[in-house]
Amino acid sequence: TVAQKIVVHKTSPRGTHFRRAGPRQRVYFESDEVHACIVTCGGLCPGLNTVIREIVCGLSHMYGVTKILGIEGGYRGFYARNTISLTPKTVNDIHKRGGTILGTSRGGHDTSKIVDSIQDRGINQVYIIGGDGTQKGASMIFEEIQRRGLKVVVAGIPKTIDNDIAVIDKSFGFDSAVEEAQRAINAAHVEAESVENGIGVVKLMGRYSGFIAMYATLASRDVDCCLIPESPFYLEGKGGLFEYIEKRLKENGHMVLVVAEGAGQELMAENMRSMGHEDA
Amino acid sequence: TVAQKIVVHKTSPRGTHFRRAGPRQRVYFESDEVHACIVTCGGLCPGLNTVIREIVCGLSHMYGVTKILGIEGGYRGFYARNTISLTPKTVNDIHKRGGTILGTSRGGHDTSKIVDSIQDRGINQVYIIGGDGTQKGASMIFEEIQRRGLKVVVAGIPKTIDNDIAVIDKSFGFDSAVEEAQRAINAAHVEAESVENGIGVVKLMGRYSGFIAMYATLASRDVDCCLIPESPFYLEGKGGLFEYIEKRLKENGHMVLVVAEGAGQELMAENMRSMGHEDA
Amino acid sequence: TVAQKIVVHKTSPRGTHFRRAGPRQRVYFESDEVHACIVTCGGLCPGLNTVIREIVCGLSHMYGVTKILGIEGGYRGFYARNTISLTPKTVNDIHKRGGTILGTSRGGHDTSKIVDSIQDRGINQVYIIGGDGTQKGASMIFEEIQRRGLKVVVAGIPKTIDNDIAVIDKSFGFDSAVEEAQRAINAAHVEAESVENGIGVVKLMGRYSGFIAMYATLASRDVDCCLIPESPFYLEGKGGLFEYIEKRLKENGHMVLVVAEGAGQELMAENMRSMGHEDA
Amino acid sequence: TVAQKIVVHKTSPRGTHFRRAGPRQRVYFESDEVHACIVTCGGLCPGLNTVIREIVCGLSHMYGVTKILGIEGGYRGFYARNTISLTPKTVNDIHKRGGTILGTSRGGHDTSKIVDSIQDRGINQVYIIGGDGTQKGASMIFEEIQRRGLKVVVAGIPKTIDNDIAVIDKSFGFDSAVEEAQRAINAAHVEAESVENGIGVVKLMGRYSGFIAMYATLASRDVDCCLIPESPFYLEGKGGLFEYIEKRLKENGHMVLVVAEGAGQELMAENMRSMGHEDA
Repeated sequence: TVAQKIVVHKTSPRGTHFRRAGPRQRVYFESDEVHACIVTCGGLCPGLNTVIREIVCGLSHMYGVTKILGIEGGYRGFYARNTISLTPKTVNDIHKRGGTILGTSRGGHDTSKIVDSIQDRGINQVYIIGGDGTQKGASMIFEEIQRRGLKVVVAGIPKTIDNDIAVIDKSFGFDSAVEEAQRAINAAHVEAESVENGIGVVKLMGRYSGFIAMYATLASRDVDCCLIPESPFYLEGKGGLFEYIEKRLKENGHMVLVVAEGAGQELMAENMRSMGHEDA
Repeated sequence: TVAQKIVVHKTSPRGTHFRRAGPRQRVYFESDEVHACIVTCGGLCPGLNTVIREIVCGLSHMYGVTKILGIEGGYRGFYARNTISLTPKTVNDIHKRGGTILGTSRGGHDTSKIVDSIQDRGINQVYIIGGDGTQKGASMIFEEIQRRGLKVVVAGIPKTIDNDIAVIDKSFGFDSAVEEAQRAINAAHVEAESVENGIGVVKLMGRYSGFIAMYATLASRDVDCCLIPESPFYLEGKGGLFEYIEKRLKENGHMVLVVAEGAGQELMAENMRSMGHEDA
Repeated sequence: TVAQKIVVHKTSPRGTHFRRAGPRQRVYFESDEVHACIVTCGGLCPGLNTVIREIVCGLSHMYGVTKILGIEGGYRGFYARNTISLTPKTVNDIHKRGGTILGTSRGGHDTSKIVDSIQDRGINQVYIIGGDGTQKGASMIFEEIQRRGLKVVVAGIPKTIDNDIAVIDKSFGFDSAVEEAQRAINAAHVEAESVENGIGVVKLMGRYSGFIAMYATLASRDVDCCLIPESPFYLEGKGGLFEYIEKRLKENGHMVLVVAEGAGQELMAENMRSMGHEDA
Repeated sequence: TVAQKIVVHKTSPRGTHFRRAGPRQRVYFESDEVHACIVTCGGLCPGLNTVIREIVCGLSHMYGVTKILGIEGGYRGFYARNTISLTPKTVNDIHKRGGTILGTSRGGHDTSKIVDSIQDRGINQVYIIGGDGTQKGASMIFEEIQRRGLKVVVAGIPKTIDNDIAVIDKSFGFDSAVEEAQRAINAAHVEAESVENGIGVVKLMGRYSGFIAMYATLASRDVDCCLIPESPFYLEGKGGLFEYIEKRLKENGHMVLVVAEGAGQELMAENMRSMGHEDA
């Protein structure tokens, strides 16, 4: 009883559901006809090499695939650079190194050149690791592939250190980000404790979501206040941030404030308006 | 044959020499008449608690001193706050914590109030841990003490993460700074390697000296170029920085540049002048 | 809709189920009548201080409890030693220290003396952190409490680094054990790689379960074979361990073998029998 | 004024002196006639790859040497295995990996076969990294080379984690050993503190010297007693170890004892004799 469809319960009262990723009852490709390629795009994220390694080893050991190409330097690598052959042996130790062995770049997305390259090389499985911009590109590649009637699958592997994708368990790199964030919080705590009424402010990643900030806060236990985009707040007056800060300083003599990048953006916008300014 | 004078060879052809710190033939104070105090001033530096602990344990175990006070919150703690008693027991575990258990602050130096406090409390050994501003204050305290004819010694313990004091072996905190710097260099190297013609730039502490930058560069072995205040350079033309960067990128496809804070300040100044600007 | 009973679905075809721990609709005690105590027993485990801190802070901040005692030195602390008062302030930094601030010991369980002490002190919530022996003791304490008709609850917090309790998500200390295990695996891998036909053997905790061994194996990616108590194996002949080792050495020139403490105990027993020996 | 001779002051009242290693006024070989090889023998030690990398990069960048061979698998690699070519590019990242990229082995020393191989390959600089057994072998190789009248230099690089060679500043690997030792001491301290009259015993490397034990003791500050081979002690009676342990337990409730491998061997020997036993 293996799952057959990915999206299920579309009309369920609990909303759209997705099936958990994993092995399926029917596999479309025969092992020996698979010709896969992997590309990494956009900024770095901890775990890129681990993801590359797992795709290569999984395809190889579990599905018997032997032809796996690495596209170098992001999207533009499809048409502007050579490819490298990936085998379990060549990726054996890469999970211990940072960065991506394939290299990466921003932009360089040229749908028709990329699909030309896929077609020319006879690739029929495309694994694209990247953020939301990259995944939009992946979707355009897929549409072009459909238009041309090619038998090629495109798999988008979301790269978001913020862990802000609801349908996956945890995005890769998130744990490393939380760990690193705790180091910063710890340093801020030490600084704050050492001066009278010291306030340690730690700004963490998370433009649209506060997962890194919240997890690091929960883990460190030294944070007095954590501001995240999901939860609006105001500064002045009763129940405002300033009041709380004053209270904590009186009680404790110091405090640590964690702020996710995107927290309080509406305050900023408001402020800009009232000052007759525009955001650059 | 224990050393008797601290400064020696004043007229030596090799210049002024200092004797190595350590036990002396004659100790001025009797153990039971010593009344020591310790104060930490200015910014934090790794190892402050270790230094406090060593002073307390050294005075206590090696010299039999029993009265050691901690002055809280920097210089102003002498006249504005209570003191705490320091014993080997109370400082036993502090070297495992960051910051300073005494707290610290900037400024707050009021020579006569401080010497009043020293006199009132009957303190006769003052240990002052701090940077160059703090040590100037220590010197003023010592002068005031001499003026009043008090039998009080003042010991200044230099706090400089940059290790830029020639007459001591190594300033405390320096090793931690070099280690932390290597983490930054390593991250920059991974980033640089992952993109075409990637340049990783790491700015490190060191306004007047490049010790942290040089030690971290030597230890990491991933740095292509290290710029320090001690060694002037120019950007354009033959033998300039730009030429070297171009060469390294051609050879290697990426590079890592380490820059000590104070490197190339004369370039900046020149640039400012030529642009008719003044440094803010 | 808060859960009301802890054990549910006793007669369900899927077997006995437990409700997830968490806040309940009705709380038995009024905040101001709670008198809690905490005791840690048996060997050390990473996270003991964190658990103590969370109990104290949870009782204090979420339930308004003010009377929380720490029993020192394990079970015998109930009748042979003084107690210490625990508040959010006194436990504030303890999660950064190893061990247990309460101290611990093995044995010392004397049911009636312990319940006497609980009764005398007017304690009505007993939190007992410890392994399976300790929890048997907790159960005896609870029975004695029922016999005497006291209104005292006993909460057993399982301490098992092996993560071998099915009804909880993860036992505390397990993650630290897995991390430490990876260090050992990594070292063994380096050793094995450096010599011809090198075999690195890493023995890990886990007398009855192989969770630490399996998690560390999955995380490290350097392990060729992982032996756990749950999965029997044999050494000689076709499909045996020796055959596999020979094959891996031929293929790869070195290998890493992870063995959970309890793996292959039946082999050992058999071996002993065949040699006419008895286990000491 | 570069040093000319290595051993100086042979008849000095302060004994035999050695010149510090470093560049010399005259270099024997022309860059383009140098044909170097590197071999690592015996057990692993942190830093082996760093040493290999520094020899390769130093010969290459500073002396313009282009022919550097790596001998694989220790001494027997000279006659039983292929060599690999070493360049700054191939060794670029190896200092981040443990072990030795050349592989190693014990034994396998066959002087005449090794010198045959050196002669056959036209090697004229032999760098041998290894412990005291290995260096004895290096000396035999050198003697055989002299006997045959070859123009080949042999450089022995001492590998001793114990830092027990007086004429070098610090042996490589020593710092890592001291750091690792501190982890062990810290764990022992936590264990000892958690039980009544807890004694943590940490056995550290150092069969003939106590440098690792002493440095780790000095750095950790949690050790009550450190036993090293250089300093004899006795167990029972006044001034004995047992008396001291008893005293510390009374004072402090727990203690940490660091023991270098070779400490108290004379006690052991004596004990053996008195029991009529022989050391196996």
